Amino acid sequence: MEKLIFIGLGLGNEKGITLKGLEAARSCDTLFMENYTSILEEGSIQRLEKLLEKPIILLDRTGVENEGRMVEASEKSVVGFLVPGDAMSATTHVDLRLRAAENGIPTEIIHGVSVFTAVPGLLGLQNYKFGRTITVPLPEPNFRPTSFYEKALENYNAGLHTLCLLDIKQDRKKFMTANEALEVLGSIEEELHGGLLPPDRLVCVVARAGSDNVMAKAGLFRDMLTENFGGPLHSVVIPGRLHFLEAKALVELAGAPTSILQ
Amino acid sequence: MEKLIFIGLGLGNEKGITLKGLEAARSCDTLFMENYTSILEEGSIQRLEKLLEKPIILLDRTGVENEGRMVEASEKSVVGFLVPGDAMSATTHVDLRLRAAENGIPTEIIHGVSVFTAVPGLLGLQNYKFGRTITVPLPEPNFRPTSFYEKALENYNAGLHTLCLLDIKQDRKKFMTANEALEVLGSIEEELHGGLLPPDRLVCVVARAGSDNVMAKAGLFRDMLTENFGGPLHSVVIPGRLHFLEAKALVELAGAPTSILQ
Repeated sequence: MEKLIFIGLGLGNEKGITLKGLEAARSCDTLFMENYTSILEEGSIQRLEKLLEKPIILLDRTGVENEGRMVEASEKSVVGFLVPGDAMSATTHVDLRLRAAENGIPTEIIHGVSVFTAVPGLLGLQNYKFGRTITVPLPEPNFRPTSFYEKALENYNAGLHTLCLLDIKQDRKKFMTANEALEVLGSIEEELHGGLLPPDRLVCVVARAGSDNVMAKAGLFRDMLTENFGGPLHSVVIPGRLHFLEAKALVELAGAPTSILQ
Repeated sequence: MEKLIFIGLGLGNEKGITLKGLEAARSCDTLFMENYTSILEEGSIQRLEKLLEKPIILLDRTGVENEGRMVEASEKSVVGFLVPGDAMSATTHVDLRLRAAENGIPTEIIHGVSVFTAVPGLLGLQNYKFGRTITVPLPEPNFRPTSFYEKALENYNAGLHTLCLLDIKQDRKKFMTANEALEVLGSIEEELHGGLLPPDRLVCVVARAGSDNVMAKAGLFRDMLTENFGGPLHSVVIPGRLHFLEAKALVELAGAPTSILQ
């Protein structure tokens, strides 16, 4: 009955961790890290190992047996589970916490910075005005879901912004680009004609949130489809009704056309 | 044309800051801090000054002229603006960033951990299933808004969870408790009968998110009204439709009645 500590690593690189997280990670006997729901910049894991003066055991998505290993290790030592972004955003982490609890192992959460608040903040959009978040999946042959489009459309019709998180296939080193996500959304628009994405709809892209070379860009759907946003990770926001200050922020800070101010 | 850096302090105490934020704050010529949209634990500011080896100039809500002072200082030196929680959640901060941009001053954002993701994570609820966030205001004589109740009801009817942030009147050292917020919501329920809060509705409270003495509790509305959640800050969540894993988490980790599993 030792302990399992979930430690959020935040965004960007190894410096996204909080002081509290750093202290806790250093105090752990063993450190695991998941590397598939989000990623840090190249070299971050190696630098984090140096910073923590401890090796980190990397887990991939198929590492369910490794979860068993984590729970087992937590029974007789203090185990840290390092998670890029916030510590508890993925269902599998909640599941892991429950499995620990069922085995009588105390758990603790040390939160990390998340795209859920970083992306709105970078665009100057208010958290309060976002509806539910969607995830845009990479296209797969013979599998064309549209439910995420419908949720974004519901948000839009209610005047709310939509944060669109983009698919990651870490095993194939594939990170969906904003262009790919806009294409997927646009092809569903062509099919369903819901009115979410006419060619002149304002859309926003944030690339590499939390990094030194972050990019926040707002523009018309038709123009953004072919814009180059550079390396991963990308997020997309489809704004609903804009408060004047939000519109001004998108123009001044993200290059939106001044026509949105009228 | 020097620089203005927005630095999120995260939750809890001075150790909620990221390594990136710490380095940036240490490199600033002058540090301001806002102390009214959220708070850190007692003594945190003093300990932060020690950690940063620099004095911190505190601003209150009426310090609009101080914003002018910050913009002015940023023109000829590197200024850090320390903000509890995430750096850009408040409209006034977006406004400040725009004022800096209009004066040709480059700005940078270093994100902090926010209740927006910490509270769902502590309860084991999925971020994706939250509708828009509401703020519950402290009751004022002759001012009884109900719009926040209606937004929460819309979320509930759409099957979505609602994060309720609670009012802070820092100038009066008044932090709304979860009990007060539930009372306000309950009195509107009695008036409008929308069906958001019948006595047996499940509600959740998180107290002191990000602190060592954090508390996450789920229970029936009628019971939670009189429960003691301890010191500030409190947040309330009104869950919508629960996924089985979410319900299990609320039972195992937050003491919800097992009846919600049926």
